[in-house]
Order: sequence, then structure tokens, then C-alpha cells
Amino acid sequence: MPHIVKSYDIELGRLEDGIARMGGLAESQLASALDALESRDSELAGRIMRSDAEVDSCEAFVNEQTIKVLALRAPVADDLRTVVGALKIAGEIERIADLAANAAKRSLVLNQLPPVAPMRSLVRLGRLALAMVKEVLDAYLGHDAERALALRDRDQELDDVYSALFREILTYMMEDPRTITPCTHLMFIAKNFERIGDHATNVAELTHFRVTGKAVTEQRTKKDVSSFIGAEPPTD
Amino acid sequence: MPHIVKSYDIELGRLEDGIARMGGLAESQLASALDALESRDSELAGRIMRSDAEVDSCEAFVNEQTIKVLALRAPVADDLRTVVGALKIAGEIERIADLAANAAKRSLVLNQLPPVAPMRSLVRLGRLALAMVKEVLDAYLGHDAERALALRDRDQELDDVYSALFREILTYMMEDPRTITPCTHLMFIAKNFERIGDHATNVAELTHFRVTGKAVTEQRTKKDVSSFIGAEPPTD
Repeated sequence: MPHIVKSYDIELGRLEDGIARMGGLAESQLASALDALESRDSELAGRIMRSDAEVDSCEAFVNEQTIKVLALRAPVADDLRTVVGALKIAGEIERIADLAANAAKRSLVLNQLPPVAPMRSLVRLGRLALAMVKEVLDAYLGHDAERALALRDRDQELDDVYSALFREILTYMMEDPRTITPCTHLMFIAKNFERIGDHATNVAELTHFRVTGKAVTEQRTKKDVSSFIGAEPPTD
Repeated sequence: MPHIVKSYDIELGRLEDGIARMGGLAESQLASALDALESRDSELAGRIMRSDAEVDSCEAFVNEQTIKVLALRAPVADDLRTVVGALKIAGEIERIADLAANAAKRSLVLNQLPPVAPMRSLVRLGRLALAMVKEVLDAYLGHDAERALALRDRDQELDDVYSALFREILTYMMEDPRTITPCTHLMFIAKNFERIGDHATNVAELTHFRVTGKAVTEQRTKKDVSSFIGAEPPTD
């Protein structure tokens, strides 16, 4: 909807730019974390951990900009959705960057221990999560509700791969208890990637709401069964 | 600040009631999850998992109420802070309830496996997290910025206890590899409690901002060293 007040559009644009920049940083943090894991590059991992502050200051900018637009412009309807959505999306992206930084932090430990085989599957899982982050940022910036919603199926795929990896790591630890320490870190990194998929899906749902004005009502069917591993899942 | 329009205060009050109700539910979910873990009560754990929907619908109410107040009243200054803060706090509380429900879900698996000793320490950790949740809700509802800020020290204590427990579980698994599966679930539940402490601290910082209008600038020193266990932490 075009506005009479032109500077208003500039402010909304600035908000969107803030999100785009945050998203780009988070995406690059995650891509670098995967490289650091794969190539056992502690120097790179250290850089990722230090650049987390940049994402935080980006989020602070989005928050301030949001409060400013709300206070000065009192937006309604579409614009109010955009502004409130930006605030929430910024929070989700901040968590994605945080989880990537934690994966980098754990890779520093892994580099001091002998390599373990499930690392290959872990990096594959991370690449699936990274593809979701890329996709949802494109959907958000392209105001594409359909494309955003399609992310939910990919999150299901990510959950399936995560559950399989969880079993793989568990088996590996049992077969060779000397791998317990590195494998534990692998499990937590895997969980980080699974959570990144959830946050990307949250951004997708917020994008859908922003574009269509309708909340996604159909409950997401959460099929991450890893919480049940080691026993039969309950039937209800 | 008193308002001319009386119904405005009623709407802000409704928002605060929504948060209070959500907080009460999350607190009770966590308390029940600890009971279910301690007494190996699968029936109780199942109830906790089912009541998660109640927290979600509470959050939806807070979100709708926020949009309504923003659109109809265009609040500024203190009131704008209250409204935007409510939105964020609702998100934090929703995560606390989610993490409690996940602990309950994992307890169903643990009940099908032989008991493991570190469970006692795990429940102690959970009680520390529960005390933080109670405390921050009191600080929020009492508009008490000082009390809210004191939560940060307690989060440090929680992180220390978490790191010690992480080592305890790791040692236990290495000494008896048959306990790997239950111990893995214990680790993830411990991580959930540590995250609950983080979310409670976020609520504390949002409460401080709401009451004083000042963001907490001093960086929280995060001393959860568990990500480094198994190796020497880097010096920077």
C-alpha cells in the first residue's frame, strides 16, 4: 500500500534492510561453522564465535527501528503486521546465528580429539539446515507466502535426517565408548541444526502471516522422534 | 502514567493478565515435569505433554491483544515499552513451557529403562531453574527492576551446576556404557533446564527495560563451559 508520507516507506525499508542484513550474517555464520567442522579449522571457528556480536548489534538496530516506527507512525493493518513481524523475525534469526556460533564453539573441542565417523552425516544435516535458512530469507524478501509455507515439508525432512543421525551416533558410542566425549558434542551440534530448521520454519510462518494476514492455523506435525529413542514412542 | 481513556488501562491490564496466566502455566508445567522425572510417573508426563496446547493458546491471546492495543491505541513511551515487552516475554515463556514439555516427553523413555544415578542431580538442577522462573514472574508482576536484574547471578549459578552435571553424566557413561542411552536423555534434559534459566534471564532483562526504559547494556558473562568439556577452553 503506497503512503502519503514518503519517509514512512523509507523507515519500513530500513527495517527490512536490517532483517536482510541479519539474515545474511546468520547464513554466513552457519556456512562457516559447517566449513570449520568439516575441515577441522579452529582459526575459522574462533572467527565465527567473535562475529556473533555483529548479529546482536543488528538485532538491536531492528528493535530500535521497530520501536521508532511504532511510536512515530502508529502503523495499522498491513504495516503493523510488517513491523511486529520484523521484531519477531529478528529474534528468530538471532537464535539461528547463536546456534551456529555454538556449533563453532564445540568444533574447537572436537579438533582436539580424534575424528569420529558420524561427522560426515552431521555436516550433511547442517547443509540441509543451511538450505532452509537461505530459502526462507528469499521467501521473506520476495514476500512469497507459498514459498515460505513449503518450508514446513523441508523441516520434516530435516527432522527425519536428525533422528537417523541421533541413532547413528548412539550406536557409534556404544560400539566404542572411547568416542563418548566427541560423540556427545556431535549430538548437541546435531540438535542445534535441528533447532535452526525450527527457527527457519518459524520465520516462514511469520512471513506467511505478514503477506496474507492469516496465521498458519494447521498445526505443524512435529515428527522429530529422537526424544523417544531408546524406547517405544507412546501411541498418543 | 494514568490515562484519560479508561478502557485503555483495562486493555493493558488484560495483556498483563495474559502474561501472568502464561507464566503460571509454564511454572506448573516445569514443576510437574520434575515430579514426573523424580517419581517415574509416566501418566503425569503424558498430561504435561498434552497441556502444552494451553500455553500456546495463551500466547496467541497475548499476541492478538498486543496487535489490538497497538492498532487502536498507538501507545508511546512507557506504554509502548509495556506492549512490545509483553510480546517478547510471551515468546520467552512459551519456550520455557516447551522445554518443560520436552523434559516430560524424555521422561517417558527413561521410565522404560533402568534408573540411573545422575537423576538426583538432574532434578536438583531443574529445581534451580524452577526457582528462577518463579522469581522472574514475581519481579515482572511487581514491576521490580532490581529484583529482575538479580536473576543474572542466579543464572550463573545454574550454569555452574549444569556444567558439573554434564561432567558427572559423561563420567557415568564412560564407566558403564550400558547407561549411554538413558544418560543421553539426561544430558538433553539438563540442557533444557539450562536453557530455561537463559529464558528466565531474558524475561528479567525485558522486565528491567520495561520498568526503567533502559536496556541492560552490561554484557552477560556466559560461563556455561559445558560446550568445552573434553578439551581445554580457548583462552580468548
